[in-house]
Amino acid sequence: MAASIDQNAWERARARQDMLTKPRGALGRLEDIACWFAARQGKACPEPLRPHIAVFAADHGVCDEGVSAYPSVVTGEMVRNFARGGAAINVLARRADAELSVVDVGVASDLSDVDGIVHAKVRPGTANLVVVPAMTREDCARAMDVGRGQARAAIEAGANLLIAGDMGIGNTTSSACLICRLAGASPEEVVGSGTGVDEDGRARKVAVVARALARIKHCSNVDALAEVGGLEIAAMAGFYLQAAEAGVPAVVDGFIAAAAALAARAFDAGVTDWLLASHVSGERGHALALRALGLEPLVDFRMRLGEGTGAALVVPLLNAAIALHNEMATFESAGVTDRDGE
Amino acid sequence: MAASIDQNAWERARARQDMLTKPRGALGRLEDIACWFAARQGKACPEPLRPHIAVFAADHGVCDEGVSAYPSVVTGEMVRNFARGGAAINVLARRADAELSVVDVGVASDLSDVDGIVHAKVRPGTANLVVVPAMTREDCARAMDVGRGQARAAIEAGANLLIAGDMGIGNTTSSACLICRLAGASPEEVVGSGTGVDEDGRARKVAVVARALARIKHCSNVDALAEVGGLEIAAMAGFYLQAAEAGVPAVVDGFIAAAAALAARAFDAGVTDWLLASHVSGERGHALALRALGLEPLVDFRMRLGEGTGAALVVPLLNAAIALHNEMATFESAGVTDRDGE
Repeated sequence: MAASIDQNAWERARARQDMLTKPRGALGRLEDIACWFAARQGKACPEPLRPHIAVFAADHGVCDEGVSAYPSVVTGEMVRNFARGGAAINVLARRADAELSVVDVGVASDLSDVDGIVHAKVRPGTANLVVVPAMTREDCARAMDVGRGQARAAIEAGANLLIAGDMGIGNTTSSACLICRLAGASPEEVVGSGTGVDEDGRARKVAVVARALARIKHCSNVDALAEVGGLEIAAMAGFYLQAAEAGVPAVVDGFIAAAAALAARAFDAGVTDWLLASHVSGERGHALALRALGLEPLVDFRMRLGEGTGAALVVPLLNAAIALHNEMATFESAGVTDRDGE
Repeated sequence: MAASIDQNAWERARARQDMLTKPRGALGRLEDIACWFAARQGKACPEPLRPHIAVFAADHGVCDEGVSAYPSVVTGEMVRNFARGGAAINVLARRADAELSVVDVGVASDLSDVDGIVHAKVRPGTANLVVVPAMTREDCARAMDVGRGQARAAIEAGANLLIAGDMGIGNTTSSACLICRLAGASPEEVVGSGTGVDEDGRARKVAVVARALARIKHCSNVDALAEVGGLEIAAMAGFYLQAAEAGVPAVVDGFIAAAAALAARAFDAGVTDWLLASHVSGERGHALALRALGLEPLVDFRMRLGEGTGAALVVPLLNAAIALHNEMATFESAGVTDRDGE
């Protein structure tokens, strides 16, 4: 079960904001962010963030339906790129002073020769979710446990902010299925162009998602993850659940991450108290998924890459909010006259 | 005259973006930002940003009309707070690795005892812009020269990104006059609550701005700056003009900075090529001013503090965009299959 939030720390942080040398509320969302972390760290002055990013990679049987602009082999190739430090998330992890772990939770290619990644392959990709369950409930639970283990290890190593990233050709289709099902939306509203399919490709994806949804019509919300999810999405859901249970905040990345967060919420409604949305992506249906989660994104840069990139990008903004909260002078200490000459 | 932009560097940067290991366009605005700097630095791979923030402080005679929630004495008190490192902009400058200079260009209080600031007082505040010109054209030109001098010195010291901040109780009223006049908008559309006046206070500001606009109906756009501007706003306009002439980009902060940018554009239409908008603030009329400038803000955090805080906040995002551009592996170097298996 998700940990509870320290309302008293929030109130003390809010009171502190009103003493800092600025008009009340003038730092807008930065004030809210500092108080949000105060309530979750249980401290009126929250500590600087020590982020850990875990990128979960897996393949998708639904690629057989021609739903992606890239072939499945790219999933494994990108994992090798992560391991060598050449991908976008590597650059952003360095800039955010974040630890980065890369986890093979279900890549179809053999990656056993790759050093510096976590080898936790549950199975080499999912089955085609249009025709059969993407994975068994047992495989889904194992993938979730991989994610939980990563969160647990990161927290033990000192992380106080968790980010889950994804890599998996075909995973916008799987995520669209989950978002439609768990946010109560239609394929037309949710399905986007992913890595860049054209209008014909998108129409194919809409049809694929509609068929998958029809197939799982009588499943429970909890079972949707095994039925139409992905191994990396299940790992991300487990990662969020573990973060919430341990009382450590997580920053949600893009479309895939939102699907994982919705899947996690089906297991534990309290998980969203521990989630902060980083950005709204260029992928159709992401804004809708965030609204369903009750999360307001921080930035809109029309990103649609995944890997945790949107979440890693905003870490400096979160740390800036905390630094302002902790380091600014108060009206009293600076000898500055408060409003109306008070 | 504003320097010209290197279209060839932009094209080479754009071509590089399409070779990086991500779907084309998947980094959204981060790609645009990297290419924007490439075109302005004249390099396909732009250098990391070395920002300089100059905060210009001055007082406003229009405070006699009861347009602000804070008394004028706060301007000088906040300059002392800047000098001691306790204000929001100090915290954000440290986080952005930015040099910070604080400039008394027209504070009413005597600040001659304050160490570590630039003493360049043109006069101790403006006159009341409702009834007379805020300052003479000569004083306005001197204030602009103070701003130009700050930009020149920062560039000589190695800065390749310039940020102007403001401090001046009453300056949202002056800025509202400039924005109404130079963006062709009504006081009702532009006047906001500034540091926090109530609805009565805002109604008073609307009436004050309307009277000032009626008074300057027959002035030229160039003269509006002396007529209804402020000494810090004139300095900021000079700062932007110098940046554009030297071919160094500037990040525009909030409402006051937008007014200064519009004033600078009245002198040289080319100045906006060198400006990037950081954020849209909570102050009414800011979004309208940015549209008039043709600038799209990066973030919307409902900030309304000034000091250059919004601009300083986004520097890590700009440097992240440049780092991604320069450091990511290409499809070829990483051995990753491009789309459609090409």
